[in-house]
Amino acid sequence: MESRDGSDVHSTEGWGYAADIDSIREAQVRIAPYVHKTPVLSSTSIDAIAGKQLFFKCECFQKAGAFKIRGASNSIFALDDEQASKGVVTHSSGNHAAAVALAAKLRGIPAHIVIPRNAPACKVENVKRYGGRIIWSDVSIESRESFCKRVQEETGAVLIHPFNNKYTISGQGTVSLELLEQVPEIDTIIVPISGGGLISGVALAAKAINPSIHILAAEPKGADDSAQSKAAGKIITLPSTNTIADGLRAFLGDLTWPVVRDLVDDIIVVDDSAIVDAMKMCYEILKVAVEPSGAIGLAAVLSDEFKRSSAWHESSKIGIIVSGGNVDLGVLWESLHKQ
Amino acid sequence: MESRDGSDVHSTEGWGYAADIDSIREAQVRIAPYVHKTPVLSSTSIDAIAGKQLFFKCECFQKAGAFKIRGASNSIFALDDEQASKGVVTHSSGNHAAAVALAAKLRGIPAHIVIPRNAPACKVENVKRYGGRIIWSDVSIESRESFCKRVQEETGAVLIHPFNNKYTISGQGTVSLELLEQVPEIDTIIVPISGGGLISGVALAAKAINPSIHILAAEPKGADDSAQSKAAGKIITLPSTNTIADGLRAFLGDLTWPVVRDLVDDIIVVDDSAIVDAMKMCYEILKVAVEPSGAIGLAAVLSDEFKRSSAWHESSKIGIIVSGGNVDLGVLWESLHKQ
Repeated sequence: MESRDGSDVHSTEGWGYAADIDSIREAQVRIAPYVHKTPVLSSTSIDAIAGKQLFFKCECFQKAGAFKIRGASNSIFALDDEQASKGVVTHSSGNHAAAVALAAKLRGIPAHIVIPRNAPACKVENVKRYGGRIIWSDVSIESRESFCKRVQEETGAVLIHPFNNKYTISGQGTVSLELLEQVPEIDTIIVPISGGGLISGVALAAKAINPSIHILAAEPKGADDSAQSKAAGKIITLPSTNTIADGLRAFLGDLTWPVVRDLVDDIIVVDDSAIVDAMKMCYEILKVAVEPSGAIGLAAVLSDEFKRSSAWHESSKIGIIVSGGNVDLGVLWESLHKQ
Repeated sequence: MESRDGSDVHSTEGWGYAADIDSIREAQVRIAPYVHKTPVLSSTSIDAIAGKQLFFKCECFQKAGAFKIRGASNSIFALDDEQASKGVVTHSSGNHAAAVALAAKLRGIPAHIVIPRNAPACKVENVKRYGGRIIWSDVSIESRESFCKRVQEETGAVLIHPFNNKYTISGQGTVSLELLEQVPEIDTIIVPISGGGLISGVALAAKAINPSIHILAAEPKGADDSAQSKAAGKIITLPSTNTIADGLRAFLGDLTWPVVRDLVDDIIVVDDSAIVDAMKMCYEILKVAVEPSGAIGLAAVLSDEFKRSSAWHESSKIGIIVSGGNVDLGVLWESLHKQ
């Protein structure tokens, strides 16, 4: 395993990635007062359909409805008082935005949130609920970043990156510490992939605890930049994305890519109709409101691609990270009826 | 507290009700292999709306989607082999039906299920999924009972009553043992009331553990026979019922009434629109699919009637039994849009 360095890498301890099991354990202590320990659900009916024993780590029940509060609160509570006093800023289509607004509220500092105009209504509502100051941008990543930069210049606020940051990755990694405490016998974890913050943290913690554990990513076909990156051996970005999974449209960063390249065993690509089927199954059998990005892990487990892969034969007890539950009921209903 | 007896009372130990803390602890051991220990969820957003700290005991995540498997498996696994070999029979609009089918399947015996023609589709599907033999009846309780009796005569199957039975009540009581282990500081428990099996078990267990705990019932306005019974001091039945809460249309039995009369501190009556609002809040904030009967506890906590009651001042940490999650998505969507 090659060591990595460079000015953007905050920590090169251990395996040389941006985060490690120590920074993840530190995060777990730091964020404990601000996050829920979420339950793990299972269903013999879904197991019978999947042909595997599945353990759903329900981050949809997390504060602000998604795992993002883990990374956001770790980043924000790691700031020293002087940095924190100027507030924080981020750009996000939703869950990270709400998480930053909530974590900033808990710390008592201002949060400036740049949101693209196509963000889901329920996610924008969450930002408002936690008192974040919303700045609307265009949909493009360039527009978001330029608005973000302007806020930084005007206010001195600290950027809380949604994934490409040691503290964010370490915070997200706490979800896999918890899952492996709750169900130690898990041999495989399936994680939605977008910018790679969640899967990097999950993989770094899980492989430190159990080097033989399999880490699989689930990615939507309409935003399969990570699968393409793994195939090409370098970060690939796409000119545009098209998927119902609004939380999975970002591309890998320079801190998450090395972890994805080295520690993610395989990426399973699924189409939107499989995601919608999985959302429906979560609602009808698990009784859980799951957003498209949160349902993609189940969609991957049920896919033919998974059944044909070597991972199918090597896994029997599979943890699925249900990343979030922020879905407008109308959107769920309409997606089911389009099928 | 007056002692009670009579030929229908299977146990007169302790306080003289049909069940007691010992029969409930026995049930907990008997059913442990067949039920989930369901998680307790909380939400600071909902707490802020309610003005109380709420703990949602999520029986919607229970096997077959409702608490009913607790009483059904306790009743069915308490049968001796000769009784069990002839199978079991019950009549139910849904959740108890599926629970009996599942528990019978687990014991390897036949289940005959009499279902009224107006039962929700998803609940009928559950019965089919577990291999129950369905016998359709008319909607009236007379029709259900007469079909049930015929099956008993023809097959020798044992009737598993949905609520008026020591083993059913004892099984349902295990939900409150669990809740008080998970959150010992709870001072009030709110329970949906219909035939009274769940609330009897919950009250008997909770008041044995903590005599000062408050037990409140939540009942739909269109089937408020229990509130009328409490007011009249005797069992009142209604000529008809009209509520979206399809699981709450039964009337008290002779074994549940004494417990409701003596141990239920108050009954909060709510209308259907409050139930639908609570279902929506469960979906949008808790991220949980909750059927109308399961959402009624939250509706009661949020009601003006509760705020005006003495119980409001005496409660600060409230357990809410979310009894089940079997709701057709279409029904949820349509109810929200009728508002």
